[in-house]
Amino acid sequence: MSDRLIYLPLGGAGEIGMNAYVYGYGAAGKERLIVVDLGVTFPDMDGTPGVDLILPDIAWLRERKAQIDGIFITHAHEDHVGAIGHYWEQLGAPVYARPFTANIARRKLGEHGQPEGVVTVVDVYPHVIACGPFKVSYVPISHSIPESAGLVIDSPDGRIIHSGDFKIDETPVVGDPWDKGLWEEISKDGVKALICDSTNVFSPDPGRSESTIGDAIAEMMKDATGMVVATTFASNIARLKTLAIAAQKADRSVVLLGRAMRRMVEAATDVGILSGFPAVVSPEDALNIPRENLMLLVTGSQGERRAASAQLAQGSYLGLKLKEGDTFLFSSKTIPGNERGVIRIMNQLSELGVDVIDDAGGKYHVSGHANRPDLQTMHQIVKPQILIPMHGEHRHLREHVKLGNAGGLTGIVVVNGMMIDLSGNQPTVAEYIDTGRTYLDGSVQVGAMDGIVRDRIRMALNGHMIVTLIIDEDGDPLGDPWVEISGLAETGNSNAALVEVVEEDLSQFVNRANGKTLRDEVKLEKELKTIARRSAQAEIGKKPEVTVIVSRLG
Amino acid sequence: MSDRLIYLPLGGAGEIGMNAYVYGYGAAGKERLIVVDLGVTFPDMDGTPGVDLILPDIAWLRERKAQIDGIFITHAHEDHVGAIGHYWEQLGAPVYARPFTANIARRKLGEHGQPEGVVTVVDVYPHVIACGPFKVSYVPISHSIPESAGLVIDSPDGRIIHSGDFKIDETPVVGDPWDKGLWEEISKDGVKALICDSTNVFSPDPGRSESTIGDAIAEMMKDATGMVVATTFASNIARLKTLAIAAQKADRSVVLLGRAMRRMVEAATDVGILSGFPAVVSPEDALNIPRENLMLLVTGSQGERRAASAQLAQGSYLGLKLKEGDTFLFSSKTIPGNERGVIRIMNQLSELGVDVIDDAGGKYHVSGHANRPDLQTMHQIVKPQILIPMHGEHRHLREHVKLGNAGGLTGIVVVNGMMIDLSGNQPTVAEYIDTGRTYLDGSVQVGAMDGIVRDRIRMALNGHMIVTLIIDEDGDPLGDPWVEISGLAETGNSNAALVEVVEEDLSQFVNRANGKTLRDEVKLEKELKTIARRSAQAEIGKKPEVTVIVSRLG
Repeated sequence: MSDRLIYLPLGGAGEIGMNAYVYGYGAAGKERLIVVDLGVTFPDMDGTPGVDLILPDIAWLRERKAQIDGIFITHAHEDHVGAIGHYWEQLGAPVYARPFTANIARRKLGEHGQPEGVVTVVDVYPHVIACGPFKVSYVPISHSIPESAGLVIDSPDGRIIHSGDFKIDETPVVGDPWDKGLWEEISKDGVKALICDSTNVFSPDPGRSESTIGDAIAEMMKDATGMVVATTFASNIARLKTLAIAAQKADRSVVLLGRAMRRMVEAATDVGILSGFPAVVSPEDALNIPRENLMLLVTGSQGERRAASAQLAQGSYLGLKLKEGDTFLFSSKTIPGNERGVIRIMNQLSELGVDVIDDAGGKYHVSGHANRPDLQTMHQIVKPQILIPMHGEHRHLREHVKLGNAGGLTGIVVVNGMMIDLSGNQPTVAEYIDTGRTYLDGSVQVGAMDGIVRDRIRMALNGHMIVTLIIDEDGDPLGDPWVEISGLAETGNSNAALVEVVEEDLSQFVNRANGKTLRDEVKLEKELKTIARRSAQAEIGKKPEVTVIVSRLG
Repeated sequence: MSDRLIYLPLGGAGEIGMNAYVYGYGAAGKERLIVVDLGVTFPDMDGTPGVDLILPDIAWLRERKAQIDGIFITHAHEDHVGAIGHYWEQLGAPVYARPFTANIARRKLGEHGQPEGVVTVVDVYPHVIACGPFKVSYVPISHSIPESAGLVIDSPDGRIIHSGDFKIDETPVVGDPWDKGLWEEISKDGVKALICDSTNVFSPDPGRSESTIGDAIAEMMKDATGMVVATTFASNIARLKTLAIAAQKADRSVVLLGRAMRRMVEAATDVGILSGFPAVVSPEDALNIPRENLMLLVTGSQGERRAASAQLAQGSYLGLKLKEGDTFLFSSKTIPGNERGVIRIMNQLSELGVDVIDDAGGKYHVSGHANRPDLQTMHQIVKPQILIPMHGEHRHLREHVKLGNAGGLTGIVVVNGMMIDLSGNQPTVAEYIDTGRTYLDGSVQVGAMDGIVRDRIRMALNGHMIVTLIIDEDGDPLGDPWVEISGLAETGNSNAALVEVVEEDLSQFVNRANGKTLRDEVKLEKELKTIARRSAQAEIGKKPEVTVIVSRLG
C-alpha cells in the first residue's frame, strides 16, 4: 500500500475555538503524525453548566501516541494553546513555538506539573524543523497577539500552507507586519492545500490596521474628565500598547488590573517584544493619583463574572472605585453568546453614572482576523490546488468555500472528525473519526456524552425530587415514603405542601403494592418515579427529575 | 393632605420587556390608579432555567385592588399584554384596548378562564375614556404591530403623554402612519411629563420605514432558485404582509408555519386590518407545489428551540424539508441573549446546504422603535416639562435623559419601584416600592427571590449529591451511609467510584460519632454535608450541592 498525506481536524472545524488539527504521512493507519495547535473553548450555562473548560476529544491521537512526531503551536491564544498543559502527558511529543508562544506554553505546562523543557523555541522561515516525514517552517503573520505564525508544511506529497489565525496588517503596532513578499515566496513553487482561517468570512470590508485606532483612543482619553477604564483581551499586546500610549498622551498613568493582564505583560516583557510600553503604577499607588490622571487597563472584556471589570462594575476592585463622570471603554468585540454578561456590566456601570463606550462605531477596536477581501488576497497569493477552510462554524467554512470558488479555487468543507486524503489530485474523505468534546469538570476530565452535564441541565430545567423508602427484613415497607425537593415550588395548585401531596400518592401505591412488586428493585423504582412525576405534574405543572432510594434492612 | 399625581413603573424601567406602569391621583396612599400595560419577559438558561415565563411582581397593585380604575394596553406585543391572562383576576379592573389588541387580550383571558367581556374596545383620539380622576385617549402611532398607540392621560394636575412603543414611519404598510399634526395637537397646550420609549436610543441614524424593504425582499425572492423560508416576529403583521407580497411578486405561494404565525394572521384578519394579504396554501398542498414557487413564513426568528424554524433546520416540519439550494431569510434582529440559539439554527441550515440571509446589511429588516433622531423629534414636538424615559435597561434610560438634556429638556431616570410624585414643579421620589419578578414555573407562580430557581442553578453548576443514613430505635446507625449522585463525575482522582470514596469518609465519621451527635438532627446533617463536600472536592475538585436524608426508625 502506498503512502498517503492526510488532514484531520479534531477541533476548530465546525466551531470558533478549540483548534486542534492533525497532519499525517505514511501508510494508511501507520502515518507519522504532527499536531497543529491544541486549544480550548469556553463553557456556557446553556449547554455546559458547571464545566470549567472544554477541550477537544483526543482519544484518536492518544491511541496513536507513538506515531506523533511533534506539536506545533501557531500562537498563544487560549483556543490554540490552552489544552497543552492538560494534554501534553497523553501525547508526549516535542512542542514547537516561537518565543512568546513558547513562554506561555511553558507556563501552562509548569502549572500542570509537566516538563517545560519539551518546548523548543523556533526560528522563523526559512528555518526548517524536520519532524518525521515533514519539514515545517514558521511564517510570521499579523494577528491580535504577538508572534503569530502560519506554517509551511512540506511533505513528500507536496506543500501545505496552514494559515493560522491571521489578518493583513502592515502596521500592527506590536509584532510582525504583513509581508506579502514572504507569502509569495513560500507559494511560488505550488501549494497543494491551503488550510485557512475563516472567522471573518462574513465581514465584507477590508480589515483595518491596529495603528488606525490609537489617535481616536488618545482623543477620547484626553476629553474624558474622570478616570478612564479600558478593557480588551489581555493577550492583545498590541492593543494594550495602543491603550497605554494613548493614556500617556492624555497624561494618565497606567494601572494593570487582573491576573491575565499582568501575566501577559510579563510574558511579553520577558521575550522583549514590549518596548515602549509606559511604566505602570500599582493599584495602591493609584489611590494617590488624581482620577483624571489614571487609566486602568482591566481584564473582563467579555463580561466574565469574576474579572476585574465585573468587580469594578459592582463597586470596587483593590480599593479603586468608579463613580459619576468616569469613562469605561470596551476596546473589544463581544463574542456571540457573551452579550448577556457584557450588557449586565454596562448597566451596572450606568447605575454608577459611568459613561460606557463600546465598539458600536468601530472607532476603538479592530478585529484580528482577515475579512472577506483579505481572505481573497491570501487565496490569490497562495493559489492552492485545494482550499480547506478551518477555524469557523459550519456556516463560515461553507461561505469560505463559496468565496474560494468565486475566485476560481476548488474548496471543500471539512469538519471535525473528517479525515481527508490529500495524496491524489482530488481530496477524498478517507475516514470519519469519532470525535467530540472533553470537559474539564473540577479536576476531572469527563466526556461530553457521558450524561453528567445532561443530568445537570435536566435538574436545572425540571428541579430534583428525591424519594426514599425503607423496606424491612420481611420485605414490608417500614413507614411511608419520604420526599425531598430541590429547585421545586414548595406549594402547588392544591395549596398543600408539594412533598406531602406526593408522599400521599406514593404511600397509597406502597400500601397497595404486593410483595412481588416490593421485592422487584427495578420495577419498584420505576413505579415510584412515575407516580412522583405524575403527582408533581398535577400539582405544579412540572415533571421533576426523580431519584429513588430504596433502603432494604437486613 | 393635598392630592398628588404619581408615576410608578413596576416593570419595563430597567429592562426591555415586562412593561407595567402605574399612574395614580389622589391623597397619598389613597390614589385612584390606572395600569398601563401588563407584559411579560422571557426566561433564559443563565438566570432562570426551567422557568416558563417572567412576570412583573404586582404585589403592590394586588394590595390596592380596590383603587384600580382601569388597565390600558397600548399594543399587542407580549411584553405589553402577555401577563393579562395571568394577572387579571388579581386586579379585576376593566381593560381598554384598540380592536386588534383587544382581540389578542381576549384570547389570552379566555385561555386562562377569565371573562373576555372585561375588555372594552376603544376608539382613538379625540375619543376620551373617563377613568377615575383620569381622562385617557388612545393616540395612534406606528410600531411593528398594528394599532399601536400612545396615551394622553389627563389628570387634575396636568397632561401626561405615555408614548408607548413607537417609531416614526409615514408609510408603515399596515397600521397607522406617523401623524405629526396629531402629536402637535395633543402637545400644544402644555405637557407635564412625557414617558417615552428608550429602546433604540443608541441607534444614531434616523429610522427607516417598513415600506423601504419590500423591493429588496422581492428581488431576493425572485433570484432565489429553490424554496424560500422567511422568519420574523409573528406579531409583525406589516412584515408578514411585506414578505407575502414579495413572495407573490416572485411567483411564490405563501405557507404559514407555526401556531403564533397562524394565530396572528387570524387575529389581524378578524379585525379587518390585513387587506391585500395573498391567499395562503396549507402545508399539505405545498407538497405538490414546485419548491421554486414556495415561500414559507415561519415562527422562530429568535432561535426558539421548538419553533418551526428550529424544526425545519433539524430536518423537516409537517413534511416540508429544506435542502441544498434553498434560502432562509431572517427578516428580524436577534435580541441580545438569543445569539446562541439563532447561530445554532444558522449552522444547521448550513449543514443542509441552505443559504442563510440575515439582517447584517439592514436590507431586509427595519426596527419598530424610534432611533435617536426620532426620539429628538418626539421631544421637540411634545416639549414636556419633564422627560421620563421608559422601556429600556438602565443604560438606555440614562442615555435617553442625556439626549433630552442636550435638547434642553429636564429628564430623570426612573427605574422599577421608584414612585415619582409629579404634582409639583419638580418631580420628587415619593417612595421606593419593593418590586421584582414573578416566575411562572409550570403551573405555579413563584417569587424570583424564593430560592427555587437559585437551587436549580446551583445544581446545574455543582451537581447534586444525596446522602442517606438510617438511625435505628436505639439511636445507633443502621448500616452505613449511602450516597447517590446526579450530574457528577462517577470516578475521580483516586480512580475509585466517587460514591464509594464519599461513603467511606462518611462511614468513618458515623462510626466515630457519639450518641449526642447522632441525636442532634441539625448538627448531624451539617457534619454529613461538610464531609461529603470535602470528600468530593478532594476527589473530583468540585463541591456539590448536598441533600442529607436521615431516617429514624421507631
